[in-house]
Amino acid sequence: MAIETRAPNKITEPDNDISHLDISKLNITLTESPKALVAPKTLRFGTTFTDHMAVATYDPSTGWSDPEIKPFAPLTLDPASSCLQYCSSVFEGMKAYLGPDGKARLFRPELNMRRLEGSAARLALPPVDGNGTLELIKRLVQFEKRWIPTLQGYSLYLRPTIIGTRPALGVAASDIAMLYVIASPCGPYFPQGLRPVSVLAISDKVRAWPGGTGGHKVGGNYSPGFLPQQVATKQGYDQVLWLFGEDKRVTEVGGMNFFVVVTRDDGDGYDFITAPLDGTILPGVTRASLLALASDPVFNEAAGLNLHPVERAYTIHDLVQWSSQGKLAEALCIGTAAVVVAVNKIGYEGKVIEVPEHEAGLGPVGMALREKILAIQEGREEYEGWSVLCE
Amino acid sequence: MAIETRAPNKITEPDNDISHLDISKLNITLTESPKALVAPKTLRFGTTFTDHMAVATYDPSTGWSDPEIKPFAPLTLDPASSCLQYCSSVFEGMKAYLGPDGKARLFRPELNMRRLEGSAARLALPPVDGNGTLELIKRLVQFEKRWIPTLQGYSLYLRPTIIGTRPALGVAASDIAMLYVIASPCGPYFPQGLRPVSVLAISDKVRAWPGGTGGHKVGGNYSPGFLPQQVATKQGYDQVLWLFGEDKRVTEVGGMNFFVVVTRDDGDGYDFITAPLDGTILPGVTRASLLALASDPVFNEAAGLNLHPVERAYTIHDLVQWSSQGKLAEALCIGTAAVVVAVNKIGYEGKVIEVPEHEAGLGPVGMALREKILAIQEGREEYEGWSVLCE
Repeated sequence: MAIETRAPNKITEPDNDISHLDISKLNITLTESPKALVAPKTLRFGTTFTDHMAVATYDPSTGWSDPEIKPFAPLTLDPASSCLQYCSSVFEGMKAYLGPDGKARLFRPELNMRRLEGSAARLALPPVDGNGTLELIKRLVQFEKRWIPTLQGYSLYLRPTIIGTRPALGVAASDIAMLYVIASPCGPYFPQGLRPVSVLAISDKVRAWPGGTGGHKVGGNYSPGFLPQQVATKQGYDQVLWLFGEDKRVTEVGGMNFFVVVTRDDGDGYDFITAPLDGTILPGVTRASLLALASDPVFNEAAGLNLHPVERAYTIHDLVQWSSQGKLAEALCIGTAAVVVAVNKIGYEGKVIEVPEHEAGLGPVGMALREKILAIQEGREEYEGWSVLCE
Repeated sequence: MAIETRAPNKITEPDNDISHLDISKLNITLTESPKALVAPKTLRFGTTFTDHMAVATYDPSTGWSDPEIKPFAPLTLDPASSCLQYCSSVFEGMKAYLGPDGKARLFRPELNMRRLEGSAARLALPPVDGNGTLELIKRLVQFEKRWIPTLQGYSLYLRPTIIGTRPALGVAASDIAMLYVIASPCGPYFPQGLRPVSVLAISDKVRAWPGGTGGHKVGGNYSPGFLPQQVATKQGYDQVLWLFGEDKRVTEVGGMNFFVVVTRDDGDGYDFITAPLDGTILPGVTRASLLALASDPVFNEAAGLNLHPVERAYTIHDLVQWSSQGKLAEALCIGTAAVVVAVNKIGYEGKVIEVPEHEAGLGPVGMALREKILAIQEGREEYEGWSVLCE
């Protein structure tokens, strides 16, 4: 059993000045008309943005520009830009939390930076300075601290994005690019909060393929899922569960990783199962963190759990069988935006695979993991240095 | 043998006013500072743009806006736009030619419009009015007619693009969008003109897969090819030849369709082979047109050819065998931008599959097809109504 707690790409120190994002040269222009804060309970995910954004641009002759923090504003892009024509576009999802000490913090941000570097490299975008980008993000969070809601389960969602801006139609890598970071205060990803979601298993459309880009956070992975999502919605399901291959392996849910909690035959607690990082699965930070927690005896004991984390290929047929045997205890959608949300129903070829429902919305495993990870993220508990101060 | 001469998606008449692009309401704002024309021989593909662009926007409550022709200018886009974050972006490649009669014409533009409608539907973009969009394109061409080079093999490349502009980070279809058309005078796609190109066969990365988007012209199909293209370039090859599956089926070259000309065992001329439209192959307009020409006895007789068009799965191993048997007469990259270009060398796993070279750059099959299609495109020959006047 291999526990992959790291994103697959290692931060490399910029090997020359040109690929260095120099935070000491940050230019700051603050807005003259700060917006009014939005009442947290009325927030809809990803629709309200803060006063400022962070920006830097890359040119092959001069490298990364001096970074800027400036008022949130539309981008001005050539209509022939690579990102619009050929989708040379990668992003990250992160959150900033306000601790009980009143300080802003990020959750394992170095994993996001490694992944961002890897995503950009996969699309042949200019080299990303993950360390410099992280410093820039921290500075943006400091300026936007008033936007972090103090309610538990609320945070400031951060969206670092890199787009290729080469203004030419020849099919070739974009050697010029723009990095920008926008920030959006948010509460629960799903409007129903902790209530479970239903998923429709789909195999006629496929999210990712070996040799494709499913293991990276590239924008082009997402829009092909919009149509299947509409199909799921029309059939009364909240999300798509992507199957893969002849054997209908279970991969991911919409834009989130997926776990199942399965009673072990030997009576020794539960297997905590998710698909392996074979290049078709996004190496999620929440995924890595839940696997690490599930393998931690101290966490298990404190939570009264006995979890055995397993990264393995499993199929929709396994889910059918585990459900019919009464062994499918919980199913979970997990990710930065959604944190941990229960699945109560899996549709497949006109039938429904039932997953036990719990009054609290989440079952004991999902609830314990969600509470633990939120406590760490919100700075209420220290754990392995996962929560990183922005100051 | 199935000859697919049509793009897979049928134009449907807009079923209500909201999805109708009303060309009678076209707003025109001409530039006050027309640019100087660029000498055709100095053009590099897709880098010079004309004075104007065509634009329309879609909103779910009001449908398509009155279309506009206005000075070419940068777009103003929210940093959270769907096209930048999730790559809801589709496009077409078309060309306008100046006939001997001095009139501007397009080549089978209805096929592009059908494909554009299908691409947008695949990404759950708003409904596209192909007929209205074509009228808009024709009007743009009329205004930009001075930009069409009169040299043979030169034309005005047109890039209709539709981008999702929903400014929200929740992963969901973009119900608002922008259609724009930009135009770029161009000569040969490859700087070396008619000289053959070399291709490196690649199977560790894949362009498209069943259930994906390879059969549609969506932007996200292209940027994942930039890295393999760089690998090919480093190894001295011009383009990537995409293989697929365990059996290494030959699919496409870079962003172009691929054909091989193979001597038949029965002595009855040549098989003219390309991969079938199984959802992983772009249904190219040039592809459909070459298949139609190759099946036309009048064309074959006039050109002194005996071609048997075949859409079938074939593998890199077939290419190796045909080459070693001396049966691989020609290999061709074809597409709107490149028209017809010969391949003289196919790299595969450190070896080279040789394709006979011809002094003229193209072999007899490629040359006859290229000359015929250019004659039709440039309005020097009438054929099946393929050349469509813009007036």
